[in-house]
Amino acid sequence: MTLKIGVIGTGAIGREHIRRITNNLSGGRITAVTDVNQEAAKAVVEQFGLDAVVYPDDRTLIASEQVDAILVTSWGPAHQASVMAGIEAAKYVFCEKPLATTAEGCRSIVDAEIKFGRRLVQVGFMRRYDNGYIQLKEAIDSNYIGEPLMIRCAHRNPSVDEGYTTDMAITDTLIHEIDVLHWLINDDYSSVQVTYPKKTRHASSHLRDPQLVTLETAKGIVISAEIFVNCKYGYDIQCEVIGEEGIVKLPEVASITYRKEAKLGVHLLMDWKQRFLDAYDRELQDFIDSIRKHGQPQGPTSWDGYIAAVTADACVKAQESGHRETIVFGEKPELYRDYEVSFHRV
Amino acid sequence: MTLKIGVIGTGAIGREHIRRITNNLSGGRITAVTDVNQEAAKAVVEQFGLDAVVYPDDRTLIASEQVDAILVTSWGPAHQASVMAGIEAAKYVFCEKPLATTAEGCRSIVDAEIKFGRRLVQVGFMRRYDNGYIQLKEAIDSNYIGEPLMIRCAHRNPSVDEGYTTDMAITDTLIHEIDVLHWLINDDYSSVQVTYPKKTRHASSHLRDPQLVTLETAKGIVISAEIFVNCKYGYDIQCEVIGEEGIVKLPEVASITYRKEAKLGVHLLMDWKQRFLDAYDRELQDFIDSIRKHGQPQGPTSWDGYIAAVTADACVKAQESGHRETIVFGEKPELYRDYEVSFHRV
Amino acid sequence: MTLKIGVIGTGAIGREHIRRITNNLSGGRITAVTDVNQEAAKAVVEQFGLDAVVYPDDRTLIASEQVDAILVTSWGPAHQASVMAGIEAAKYVFCEKPLATTAEGCRSIVDAEIKFGRRLVQVGFMRRYDNGYIQLKEAIDSNYIGEPLMIRCAHRNPSVDEGYTTDMAITDTLIHEIDVLHWLINDDYSSVQVTYPKKTRHASSHLRDPQLVTLETAKGIVISAEIFVNCKYGYDIQCEVIGEEGIVKLPEVASITYRKEAKLGVHLLMDWKQRFLDAYDRELQDFIDSIRKHGQPQGPTSWDGYIAAVTADACVKAQESGHRETIVFGEKPELYRDYEVSFHRV
Amino acid sequence: MTLKIGVIGTGAIGREHIRRITNNLSGGRITAVTDVNQEAAKAVVEQFGLDAVVYPDDRTLIASEQVDAILVTSWGPAHQASVMAGIEAAKYVFCEKPLATTAEGCRSIVDAEIKFGRRLVQVGFMRRYDNGYIQLKEAIDSNYIGEPLMIRCAHRNPSVDEGYTTDMAITDTLIHEIDVLHWLINDDYSSVQVTYPKKTRHASSHLRDPQLVTLETAKGIVISAEIFVNCKYGYDIQCEVIGEEGIVKLPEVASITYRKEAKLGVHLLMDWKQRFLDAYDRELQDFIDSIRKHGQPQGPTSWDGYIAAVTADACVKAQESGHRETIVFGEKPELYRDYEVSFHRV
Repeated sequence: MTLKIGVIGTGAIGREHIRRITNNLSGGRITAVTDVNQEAAKAVVEQFGLDAVVYPDDRTLIASEQVDAILVTSWGPAHQASVMAGIEAAKYVFCEKPLATTAEGCRSIVDAEIKFGRRLVQVGFMRRYDNGYIQLKEAIDSNYIGEPLMIRCAHRNPSVDEGYTTDMAITDTLIHEIDVLHWLINDDYSSVQVTYPKKTRHASSHLRDPQLVTLETAKGIVISAEIFVNCKYGYDIQCEVIGEEGIVKLPEVASITYRKEAKLGVHLLMDWKQRFLDAYDRELQDFIDSIRKHGQPQGPTSWDGYIAAVTADACVKAQESGHRETIVFGEKPELYRDYEVSFHRV
Repeated sequence: MTLKIGVIGTGAIGREHIRRITNNLSGGRITAVTDVNQEAAKAVVEQFGLDAVVYPDDRTLIASEQVDAILVTSWGPAHQASVMAGIEAAKYVFCEKPLATTAEGCRSIVDAEIKFGRRLVQVGFMRRYDNGYIQLKEAIDSNYIGEPLMIRCAHRNPSVDEGYTTDMAITDTLIHEIDVLHWLINDDYSSVQVTYPKKTRHASSHLRDPQLVTLETAKGIVISAEIFVNCKYGYDIQCEVIGEEGIVKLPEVASITYRKEAKLGVHLLMDWKQRFLDAYDRELQDFIDSIRKHGQPQGPTSWDGYIAAVTADACVKAQESGHRETIVFGEKPELYRDYEVSFHRV
Repeated sequence: MTLKIGVIGTGAIGREHIRRITNNLSGGRITAVTDVNQEAAKAVVEQFGLDAVVYPDDRTLIASEQVDAILVTSWGPAHQASVMAGIEAAKYVFCEKPLATTAEGCRSIVDAEIKFGRRLVQVGFMRRYDNGYIQLKEAIDSNYIGEPLMIRCAHRNPSVDEGYTTDMAITDTLIHEIDVLHWLINDDYSSVQVTYPKKTRHASSHLRDPQLVTLETAKGIVISAEIFVNCKYGYDIQCEVIGEEGIVKLPEVASITYRKEAKLGVHLLMDWKQRFLDAYDRELQDFIDSIRKHGQPQGPTSWDGYIAAVTADACVKAQESGHRETIVFGEKPELYRDYEVSFHRV
Repeated sequence: MTLKIGVIGTGAIGREHIRRITNNLSGGRITAVTDVNQEAAKAVVEQFGLDAVVYPDDRTLIASEQVDAILVTSWGPAHQASVMAGIEAAKYVFCEKPLATTAEGCRSIVDAEIKFGRRLVQVGFMRRYDNGYIQLKEAIDSNYIGEPLMIRCAHRNPSVDEGYTTDMAITDTLIHEIDVLHWLINDDYSSVQVTYPKKTRHASSHLRDPQLVTLETAKGIVISAEIFVNCKYGYDIQCEVIGEEGIVKLPEVASITYRKEAKLGVHLLMDWKQRFLDAYDRELQDFIDSIRKHGQPQGPTSWDGYIAAVTADACVKAQESGHRETIVFGEKPELYRDYEVSFHRV
């Protein structure tokens, strides 16, 4: 049975997911859309030739019998209300990050889901669906490198625009590492410290760039994460896990090797949107498949959204204080225990 | 509008394509199946929960109004008759290799399609849809390496079973290079010579392994292709194009790098089925999409199937003679000119 | 004119340098040796067929007219006295690390050399002579990556013996990074902090391993240095310099690539002694050549030895305190300014 | 005891060897030089500050008691006479390639040496001293890849000048592969065939470039060697040995990795003189050391020079005929059997 999906927010990311579900994936169909800009919503229906109703707002869309699941792709501050409404209506929810703009907001979603008694919500942390991270996860879980002791990673963009602020290095950029790394090592963050290296001349006057974030976990694993959003040379995601018996590292993006003009090498991506295309496809296909097969999503949970929010808050506090800040989550609720997405390598 | 697809032959490859279309891809639906083993066909319908009719034979399936396109995934000797029947019925045809077991058979399909006046047939040469080959193609077409002068490639399997014969190194193994390389350099083969290096002790008594095949093209490009089907260490596809200004080479399969036990490296595939998974998805999605958008497939043509058959015949002749054998195709028919699959890099 | 060299200390490293000067290098000759174990000294003369006098102690050796330069390769606590005596006698001195066991000791050598008025001393920091580091230096100096902002490096050994203590991670291991990195970026350290990740089960009970050392420089460059001396998998020196315009990284040790048993890779060194063989040759050849051509050595100076000692002290203090510790050197004396070893890439 | 060396021919390569022996190596001393241009010879003595006599010709130099060994670095056609004179005078001979310009000339040197009864001559095939080839040799000899079946190699130069002719692709370029490969696999060539791919527009009108040379050995190993002397992009030496159990391949030249301007890679050499610098040092050091320790050189023999000449003749014949040409050496003389240079990896 095809999953009927309503999309709340038809901006860039919303349209991208509509294209994906309509043209690339199997088992889902866009049946409803809404946007604060109703004309934009209508245009999208036309653009993709959708057999979909345009609703005036998220509430009426969520209430529709033609909607089994909602995609929340509106702007961040609107996420929480749509997700809460979705849970109340017992609809499945795929919510782009952030789940809510505050840790409290995330926690209230977690509580609502717990009250409902079953998972409905998946958060759009797509890196867990990236083939490279999946291979790292498999290597760690199979004890290939023994106990993980350290992670060294980097998140680099060629450049950001003037509006990008120092805290966005956490909330917009590092947020992906925050999610994927605790999943990778199956551990909780316990503290964080931020160091500012010499600033690049390519950063705007108000922005600290690069930054070095040192996270520690409950088991004592130390994560050294570099954020460098004006690195000039490319969009580059690095991750190396150092264990007791060996090391595993993300592959470079597969690209033809050239020998030309006294150089041997590969071309790097400049555009972040190219980096996780397959992962975006796979996260949505998994959302659709899991609901169709198991009656609930199995991807990143509301609790993961809450963890990301709490950790990001501590990171921003550490940016400002210069000191080590502790991170406390409270106990993981029963509903979210023993979740483990198990992929098989492609 | 969803493309209604009938599958002729529900063996391993047939089932794989059914799974793909049903679970991974968009825009196509399996509506009909048949197999010489009717029980097998019925089992497949059940296995995948298909809403599909089981037909007693290819003719009745092809005749069905519930069938827009057929997938020919029966055993090789049966392909030609199904494809011809499909063309006569003006149905779209996706035919696994070989298009026909003889060059004459391929030619008669070409002639039937020309008579019909429009492309209906796509041959299952999936490598053209592999991201690595697409990047090579883009590099060549954009003149990144200047005029291609040589290609050095290798097709290596860990092992083959006892039934694998010397000529199968051409018809089952090199056949993929035969197709993808002339597409890559947009040129026609003109001659071939086969050399036998020292035989590996891992080959069966009747098998020459490895083999070195030297193909020349109309423009004078020389292709040195190694076939080594008992190489032991992995399934490994190499391709390097040497041009006037530089060289481009297929990437290794993306895999996490490890440092362990005094070694730095990556794991290689042992199973050929893992190597082109994405390409299989993309060839079928392209078949479906092209028909839905343009009313005809844009992948490898009947003429490409004919070229593969003629070239393979000459290669087998060269295996036996030890001499350089010429390859002659006749002029490329109007219908197949100016075809160029244009992909955009993922 | 051949440089006449006297060796003080004929242990492992002393014999290695004697072998090097006698069999591999040009322009120097071992004319004198001494060791607290006189029999050992005599045995070395015999072993290498040297035309050399065995002296009873360092003072008599230094006083000999047959000695232009001394190699101080005794145990660490004896270095300072031999070096001071060498300076007093106006002999050239090549001293293995440490120059002295205390910062004060190093400073007194610096002062003695300043008083003498010309460089006599070279400290055995061989990494500056490694082809990889030289390439990094050239890239930085030529502004290839713009201003350096961060360095990420690692010093990993497969294992250490029971006697290796936590502070030796600084004084025996990181000491090489301490020297080579400030030379690389032409900057002074200003502070250091040490973090202890989860301890590997392979470390002895009293040893913290791995360790993460974060050094900052006067210009604000942040160096994140991992020390991991029971990493099991190999002897591995990593160094990556992240600049405003790009990144440069040490090459892996050149080794043949293999494809075997489902793996593609290279073998790593397990023995640290193999890693910098060429650099050892080059540092001594440069010592000999510089004296012969310019009348003074041009390699790492007494001041560099002093910097290493002060920095190591601060690192050890930071190991114990857990806090950021400041590093203060005082002004660089006139004698040591504008020194820049300029190598040309091999 | 220092080996007293006389140099016959003070052109570029002669001067380079004089510099090497004088400044880099141990155990040898230039005591005599000669050149058809006596002024050039005198200038060299001055340039390097040699304590050496300038002789009017090779005969007088060879006759000198101050000469233990001669370096023959004159132009090719003069080699044979100097080498013969050296053998007659019982002097050690290091002769740059070619040993003689004809196979007959080489054979007469072989015969003279056999008559003398002990090895005196080493031919300047330096690749056997390259660390990468040594690692390949060790891998093969230790049976790491099982029996070798094929070799795929390439010898590429950025460009050559107008005077470079088609046969020089063999006699000047492939000659190095001819020597090193039969040593690598410990086998004799039995036939050769040459194929001409499409010609690059960068080659002069009279030059076939690139060329593909297919050599077969007595054991049936097939070597596919590409020569491409106007490849534009760099000086690049590739060699891959394919065995029954796996593959080993020369490493790329060790160079720092950069990430810059959307590229990840390393710089390649453009100048061939940079590629084998270490090997040149090591071949001469080995010549000196072997004579001092064992009373005879252990590097490439006169017989190896003869093999290279015979093989090159057959290759040139194959260039012209387009056919497979057989290669016949006659039996290997007693004197040259069981020679195996055994290096230990640096």
